[in-house]
Amino acid sequence: MRLDDTDRLEAFSDGVLAVIITIMAFGLRTPGGFSWAASRTLLPSLLVYLLSFVMIGIYWNNHHHLLRATEKMDGSVMWSNLAVLFWLSLVPVATSWVARFPHHTLPAAGYGIVALGAGAAYSVLVKCIVAVNGVGSRVEVAVRRDLKGKLSLVLYATGVALAWVNPTVSYALYVAVAVMWFIPDRRLASATTETD
Amino acid sequence: MRLDDTDRLEAFSDGVLAVIITIMAFGLRTPGGFSWAASRTLLPSLLVYLLSFVMIGIYWNNHHHLLRATEKMDGSVMWSNLAVLFWLSLVPVATSWVARFPHHTLPAAGYGIVALGAGAAYSVLVKCIVAVNGVGSRVEVAVRRDLKGKLSLVLYATGVALAWVNPTVSYALYVAVAVMWFIPDRRLASATTETD
Amino acid sequence: MRLDDTDRLEAFSDGVLAVIITIMAFGLRTPGGFSWAASRTLLPSLLVYLLSFVMIGIYWNNHHHLLRATEKMDGSVMWSNLAVLFWLSLVPVATSWVARFPHHTLPAAGYGIVALGAGAAYSVLVKCIVAVNGVGSRVEVAVRRDLKGKLSLVLYATGVALAWVNPTVSYALYVAVAVMWFIPDRRLASATTETD
Amino acid sequence: MRLDDTDRLEAFSDGVLAVIITIMAFGLRTPGGFSWAASRTLLPSLLVYLLSFVMIGIYWNNHHHLLRATEKMDGSVMWSNLAVLFWLSLVPVATSWVARFPHHTLPAAGYGIVALGAGAAYSVLVKCIVAVNGVGSRVEVAVRRDLKGKLSLVLYATGVALAWVNPTVSYALYVAVAVMWFIPDRRLASATTETD
Repeated sequence: MRLDDTDRLEAFSDGVLAVIITIMAFGLRTPGGFSWAASRTLLPSLLVYLLSFVMIGIYWNNHHHLLRATEKMDGSVMWSNLAVLFWLSLVPVATSWVARFPHHTLPAAGYGIVALGAGAAYSVLVKCIVAVNGVGSRVEVAVRRDLKGKLSLVLYATGVALAWVNPTVSYALYVAVAVMWFIPDRRLASATTETD
Repeated sequence: MRLDDTDRLEAFSDGVLAVIITIMAFGLRTPGGFSWAASRTLLPSLLVYLLSFVMIGIYWNNHHHLLRATEKMDGSVMWSNLAVLFWLSLVPVATSWVARFPHHTLPAAGYGIVALGAGAAYSVLVKCIVAVNGVGSRVEVAVRRDLKGKLSLVLYATGVALAWVNPTVSYALYVAVAVMWFIPDRRLASATTETD
Repeated sequence: MRLDDTDRLEAFSDGVLAVIITIMAFGLRTPGGFSWAASRTLLPSLLVYLLSFVMIGIYWNNHHHLLRATEKMDGSVMWSNLAVLFWLSLVPVATSWVARFPHHTLPAAGYGIVALGAGAAYSVLVKCIVAVNGVGSRVEVAVRRDLKGKLSLVLYATGVALAWVNPTVSYALYVAVAVMWFIPDRRLASATTETD
Repeated sequence: MRLDDTDRLEAFSDGVLAVIITIMAFGLRTPGGFSWAASRTLLPSLLVYLLSFVMIGIYWNNHHHLLRATEKMDGSVMWSNLAVLFWLSLVPVATSWVARFPHHTLPAAGYGIVALGAGAAYSVLVKCIVAVNGVGSRVEVAVRRDLKGKLSLVLYATGVALAWVNPTVSYALYVAVAVMWFIPDRRLASATTETD
């Protein structure tokens, strides 16, 4: 594969993310009426949509920095990247499920499973990229300590388990992950700045 | 961040806007019959869709000129840009709500709140860009007097409030904002022409 | 505006067209059963979808050749281009209306009105581009005789009128336009070849 | 047509594929409840979605390698490429039909017909590209023996026929094709590597 394959992988991923974000908003159901009662059902939808929107925004940003630091790629990178997109493409359905039944166990757990799947796939993507680019490469140095990534997986898994105790606690944990990642990944950002 | 991050931010935003415009049309419900009566419900849908289409078109155009005049960006620009996209992604739902209940207060007010949110987020985006690029930069000079931006926010807020009096007045105000912006932002257009 | 604004206009238009094509297929309703009877309703849907798909494909191709021959643009080009996209964005709804009620007057006429609107907007776009680029410019020479464009509008208008006589005749006329344009616009294709 | 027409064809195709993948996930119906019973209906949906996702991923990858090896194109390439996109755009509807009625003949056969149509259109696309680029061209050498392509068509056709015997056998054959293509097309990959 040639270097500009990275650009194309990024452009395709960006396209998928752009559609996910927009289609998710479209999945917010138009209130079936015009009264306060009818429109009040919008609030939980909007909150979970906001959470999902921020989550996709974070992936978009980190993915961008990751690929910018990547010099070589192969089929394993392509397929693990598709796996990330696969899990993220389930976010709109999970979002819409939670929006409809916010106080129940299974939707809260399902949302966490999708988030966990995306996070795990992203870790695999990082591993594949490091394997191709080698120890000591720019991208390997940048992601060497992936504390935030590991912590995210732990928090999501805990959120899934606690959905059987109290869905609100699960949501709190999912929000915590989003807040933690809200600050862009400085390791990769600085890696790209240093070298270019 | 490197300069071509601006291009990527613009490409991603363009992608989201392209999906918003198309999905909004898709949200126009196919008439449930083939008679004049069944198809007459299309008219209010088409009018509000046209308004939303023009609104998105205006954002697309101004956003383009804004980013072209931008030389530097950072995380605050990226996130305030995502905030603009977040609010604009709610336009299809607001459009479809108004299309279904055009004569009621809450849909008319809700549409205005979404427009107000997008306008406010755009103002924040402009502020973040100016903060990064500094006083005297090309983009700062171009947006120094943002009368139209401020007036839009006032008109949208008035429209929201007047939805409790008469929704038609609200729509008139929203249309007024669209007409006002229809002419492309000459300040930024000339700024890009002068320098390149 | 700078020259690469043309590229961006084309990229944005391509994005909208890509979403229109895909969302139109998504609008084909999944058969509500698994029997021959349930799936037979798919056939008219598929035929009208095929017609709309070819129509969008033709616009995509001709639009590409048109913009490639275009050297200068301004706000009027941008807005007439958005008008083309506005009309084309109604194609999925018109398609889905015809798919549901293929034997009735209003859906058949509605489809033709959307096609007529898109065709008229495209003519305006061509006029705006010629006005900006001037008589004798590459693009003006290429589009000087626009017989096919004018004939399309006549055929579409006839189709709309004849929907009150027999919808099948309308569809035949719409198909005739598609067949006529199927061959790419050689004038523009050769214009771009000559100069580059 | 100029060489960068290939890039634009690829960008447009990528856009369509990105929307197909995302819209297909959106077609997964949000469970209508929050109980195990309500959510269990998700499993067949997820499995068939996974199969379709991998299928689109494979097309994306092979299409990319094919176009990279392509030096010249004309109208026949453009239209046969649109034919591939046409068939692939039917994948979300076929997927959603199978997801709803996984144990019946017609949905299983319909899915195979769509896959067969896409595969046949892809073969035609390859033939058109070879015809334009000539015997001995890089792309012609790369695709000279197209065993996998021919075998896929046979397997899909067999799957369609066997849907009347047992839909599960059809799905097994469709999965077999996906597994067979999962490994990227080394012929084209090496062709691009050799020359660049």
